[in-house]
Amino acid sequence: MTHESPSAAGTAPADLAGAIDPRLVVVSREPFNAETPLGEQIGLLTPNRLFYARNHFAVPRLAASDWRLSVEGEVERPLRLGYDDLLALPSRSLLVTLECAGNGRSSLQPPAVGEPWQYGAVSTAEWTGVPLRTVLAAAGVTARTREILIEGADRGNVPDAGGAIPFARSLDLETALDPDVLLAYAMNGEPLPPRNGFPVRLLVSGWYGMASVKWVARIEAIAGRFEGFYQADRYVMAHPERGETTTTPLRAMRIRSLITAPAAGATLPPGEHRVRGLAWSGPAPIERVEVSVDGGARWEPAELVSDPERYAWRRWEYRWDAATTGPATLLSRAFDANNAAQPAEPEWNRLGYANNAVQAIPVNVRTKD
Amino acid sequence: MTHESPSAAGTAPADLAGAIDPRLVVVSREPFNAETPLGEQIGLLTPNRLFYARNHFAVPRLAASDWRLSVEGEVERPLRLGYDDLLALPSRSLLVTLECAGNGRSSLQPPAVGEPWQYGAVSTAEWTGVPLRTVLAAAGVTARTREILIEGADRGNVPDAGGAIPFARSLDLETALDPDVLLAYAMNGEPLPPRNGFPVRLLVSGWYGMASVKWVARIEAIAGRFEGFYQADRYVMAHPERGETTTTPLRAMRIRSLITAPAAGATLPPGEHRVRGLAWSGPAPIERVEVSVDGGARWEPAELVSDPERYAWRRWEYRWDAATTGPATLLSRAFDANNAAQPAEPEWNRLGYANNAVQAIPVNVRTKD
Repeated sequence: MTHESPSAAGTAPADLAGAIDPRLVVVSREPFNAETPLGEQIGLLTPNRLFYARNHFAVPRLAASDWRLSVEGEVERPLRLGYDDLLALPSRSLLVTLECAGNGRSSLQPPAVGEPWQYGAVSTAEWTGVPLRTVLAAAGVTARTREILIEGADRGNVPDAGGAIPFARSLDLETALDPDVLLAYAMNGEPLPPRNGFPVRLLVSGWYGMASVKWVARIEAIAGRFEGFYQADRYVMAHPERGETTTTPLRAMRIRSLITAPAAGATLPPGEHRVRGLAWSGPAPIERVEVSVDGGARWEPAELVSDPERYAWRRWEYRWDAATTGPATLLSRAFDANNAAQPAEPEWNRLGYANNAVQAIPVNVRTKD
Repeated sequence: MTHESPSAAGTAPADLAGAIDPRLVVVSREPFNAETPLGEQIGLLTPNRLFYARNHFAVPRLAASDWRLSVEGEVERPLRLGYDDLLALPSRSLLVTLECAGNGRSSLQPPAVGEPWQYGAVSTAEWTGVPLRTVLAAAGVTARTREILIEGADRGNVPDAGGAIPFARSLDLETALDPDVLLAYAMNGEPLPPRNGFPVRLLVSGWYGMASVKWVARIEAIAGRFEGFYQADRYVMAHPERGETTTTPLRAMRIRSLITAPAAGATLPPGEHRVRGLAWSGPAPIERVEVSVDGGARWEPAELVSDPERYAWRRWEYRWDAATTGPATLLSRAFDANNAAQPAEPEWNRLGYANNAVQAIPVNVRTKD
């Protein structure tokens, strides 16, 4: 272990050791991919040790003291910043939900290409970091700049990409200058865990997680358009089944709600139960959530039980009086301030992204023997 | 260790073991009292392991499975709830700053009675729990009810109180019915650490911490007025030095700001520095913060760098161009939406509570040798 804590006392929090909480739902060990156990999501925030991880390569083991960020390309003053340099810049704290674009992929039929995520590739934290625009202003982007390329320290061999590449993404200049796009160095008040990007990751508030490049190593202002593998070949909505030859890049998280309790397949006694869940939408605040306990025939409003936050999910609850025994199907659907709503069926796409369809939770109401 | 995690997987988070983070500023070991190291407060939330602890007695070691809450007195239906019963009730999540009423006592002159807190007896978390009003509605308080008494499982011998007593406090009925007064069972998305009230504590949003009784064991609706030691003899503003014989109970946290960086006594090189801090007020949102770098002669606005939250502090920053060498005194002062402002000098009182005076941070600007 070579990484360090920015703690004044020099004591690394336990999470920095990269320990894997046994409650995480591990999807793959190498690279490390794991879901938040949604049944453990009892509050608004996801504890760092239960935050989902979506990695393409081995986790880079970086030391804060060795970390350097290059800002180069179409800039007046190329920069090279150390960790302490970054922490000395103006900061900002935001509550932000991050969702993997592949969350819910495993419920697509026929199966799509990619990691078989269930529903737990989504989590929420309070993030603190330096607005990307502050660093770009210090470097002075030229009038020729069209996009900002962000490159992580994680890299590996990708046969489809023709060899070894880093994880890299670009942002259009307007998005890169949004004050809510951060170079984040803290998560829930602590340094980032290594698997979530220590020491510094990008945080593109409101977008699917692929844009929030972890272990940021290099920023380049470019006059053209970045067409790297994770920009143009992956994280795009591809519909060859419709005969489409062009693709649409993923950006904002689509509106979605999930049921966190009861669990799918649960057996419950007749009587009153509390259906609990979460709802979020990248473009606009959640305005209401509805629940059906009869497979979608009738819908009733749920209660929102946390305050509105610009970029974080809201908790909701619904009181269900399960009077009759037998199987039941629980559903939830969210609506946002833009009048966006969840579809009943997912939009199938070749790479299995952005499935925001209503989730069905089958349960069984049965008197205890 | 007998307490248990409510985790479905049955795995107790490390914090539940009651480990003491070496960065905590320990004021006393028995009872356990410790301050948040404010220099480590890098985000909006205080990690559970760094949350301040203010205890009057030994920390009760409770098991969730054995915990019972009695709701009795002036109620139609006395209740006895277990942990799972409580978790099945409607919940609510809130971001709330808690401050010990004695925070900053050590800077009073002449010294006041009580624990010599510096400035770190204040922290912020995201809390989830059941509104107290929900439990009171289930029990049905009678028309005779005037106050709600809340008793903790912590107790001990208090010579001034004439023997062994529990920690107990009352709330007027109107406050007890406020939907933002919670029986909290989660803190930053996890079960409470034992020293912060596991399994269930009261959370009176906006008030000084003494009202948020930890390890809640018994709730009693009473027709009279509770005059227990921690209600009437402590946590009151007492001014015998003014010849006053009556006292005023503490309630809402007074408006306050603190400087978290640089640290008092720091030596800094000439040049640009970022002064950072926090600001909060129980009754109303923080509207602005001002900073002086010359001991109070001139004040300039700081930038608020987190979103407004009803009950949580806001982070602020100020860019200081330290052009001249020598000693300097940094000050901050906050203003809220009610036009409340911090006083320049503390209101001295016999028990040393509610010192919200402007804090002075002496630093030294010096070129490195």
